[in-house]
Amino acid sequence: MAAALALSQRGRGRTAPNPNVGCVIVADGRVVGRGWTQPGGRPHAEAMALAQAGDRARGATCYVTLEPCAHDSARGPACADLLIAAGVGQVVVAIGDPDPRTDGLGIARLRDAGIAVEPGVLAEQARGAMAGFLTRRAQGRPFVTLKLATSLDGRIALPSGESRWITGPQARAHAHLERARNEAILVGRGTWEIDRPTLDVRLPGLEARSPRVLVLSSSGTLRRPDDIAALENVDHLLVEGGAETAAAFVRAGLVDRLLLYRAPILLGAGKPALGDLGLVSLASAHGRWRLSDTQMLGSDRVEVYAAN
Amino acid sequence: MAAALALSQRGRGRTAPNPNVGCVIVADGRVVGRGWTQPGGRPHAEAMALAQAGDRARGATCYVTLEPCAHDSARGPACADLLIAAGVGQVVVAIGDPDPRTDGLGIARLRDAGIAVEPGVLAEQARGAMAGFLTRRAQGRPFVTLKLATSLDGRIALPSGESRWITGPQARAHAHLERARNEAILVGRGTWEIDRPTLDVRLPGLEARSPRVLVLSSSGTLRRPDDIAALENVDHLLVEGGAETAAAFVRAGLVDRLLLYRAPILLGAGKPALGDLGLVSLASAHGRWRLSDTQMLGSDRVEVYAAN
Repeated sequence: MAAALALSQRGRGRTAPNPNVGCVIVADGRVVGRGWTQPGGRPHAEAMALAQAGDRARGATCYVTLEPCAHDSARGPACADLLIAAGVGQVVVAIGDPDPRTDGLGIARLRDAGIAVEPGVLAEQARGAMAGFLTRRAQGRPFVTLKLATSLDGRIALPSGESRWITGPQARAHAHLERARNEAILVGRGTWEIDRPTLDVRLPGLEARSPRVLVLSSSGTLRRPDDIAALENVDHLLVEGGAETAAAFVRAGLVDRLLLYRAPILLGAGKPALGDLGLVSLASAHGRWRLSDTQMLGSDRVEVYAAN
Repeated sequence: MAAALALSQRGRGRTAPNPNVGCVIVADGRVVGRGWTQPGGRPHAEAMALAQAGDRARGATCYVTLEPCAHDSARGPACADLLIAAGVGQVVVAIGDPDPRTDGLGIARLRDAGIAVEPGVLAEQARGAMAGFLTRRAQGRPFVTLKLATSLDGRIALPSGESRWITGPQARAHAHLERARNEAILVGRGTWEIDRPTLDVRLPGLEARSPRVLVLSSSGTLRRPDDIAALENVDHLLVEGGAETAAAFVRAGLVDRLLLYRAPILLGAGKPALGDLGLVSLASAHGRWRLSDTQMLGSDRVEVYAAN
């Protein structure tokens, strides 16, 4: 299942409105098929893994990060039916599919066909791996990551506006990979006007994965953070700035994940990372975030905080 | 030697103008004496360890973090002579003593007496462990630690001034222990007027180790950061704020170590950690600091940066 979860990340940011699922098929202790949801949402992970496994799928164990779908679609048959037809012996599932067209029906159909199903394996990790799809299903909006790149004292630019570069090349490459894992980037109008040419993925081989760029603007279709709910085919949204746009998302409670790049420099006076959050007490600031990951990137450090 | 270095930290912030030395005496594979420079600077670490070892010092190996002193004092005999009189078989030394009254003479006297001396063991760690004494000797001023306690976005208070508490009880206890390891704390006049009652060590058993509090003020004896050179019996100085005082020390190049406590909160508008540093370019901010240690303290994180 851990391998299936790793595969699921290959589609992250490219499969909306479908979930980014991963699948591994094991026969006689060997991996005979691997799959992940393809860009645009099809083929599904199970279909890809079954195609790879061929006849070796008969009697094999299928590890899949999300309950196989039970609904036919014009774009392909239901994965539960594919697994039954392939004659797999057992299906291990991380979490159920909240899509009402499946929601338990996928597992039921497999069991009705005499296939053993073990659900709930690495469920928490799976919720993190498919957070975009699940947030869209549960809350009707994309999963939002706020990216900040600051000095140790929380500045994102000198008073002159100079901001290139706070962080070094390794941190910037990490941030570009992060862009490729979101269907869209959102910036405020000021950042758009300054940084427009640079909001793409500049990593060898991934240039084509530059996401859509959306602009929060009082004169556009995205006027307030809440408006992201209406975005089509966007289940992962990366908010890149500036300070007022970042603050607007934090104020609205619409940041699920904080991605904080920090360079080992002190700037003193300069532009702050966040505009006013309207806090009236320190108590109201506590308890909202917990550190979920951190690593060095050259001399910089990235920290990932999850919203509680 | 690692054990001797650990013992040396017991005296840190309490021994100026003497170095905080640690000493371990080992006979037949067993520790027979341990010592560290006592508050006020005497007895020396070697004297304490030899007293504990007694006759077992004969033929033993003495590990000491600094070259044993070669100069008699009204307050006690030279440690080199004590070691010779005790008949130790070998002396392992981390670094030489830059005090011109010793500076190589301690090792020479031991060797002249037929004792094997091995210098340079864990020398780099020893320079960190006795940084106060060494900074005073090399630069004629105390070793300066700047403490900051901020939100993730670098704020030290809300716009209202509310700053209790940014960090939690474990981080505050850590900061109080740090106070006990400096001969003096320095704050700006504004912080003095606001925080005066609380600049002490509030840890069980360590209340008596509250350091002197010094105030940087245009009307006092400490008017500029450079004035710390004249402080007597202060080899470790902790600068605790506020933002303008912190910035003055950074601008003057007088911060050797940055102690950064960070709470997992976002504050947005509020008081910044540092005043103006007068930087004219980002390039001039880079390359000054490197992360030397980090750990979680409850939900907070402390990072230690060393000046390059």
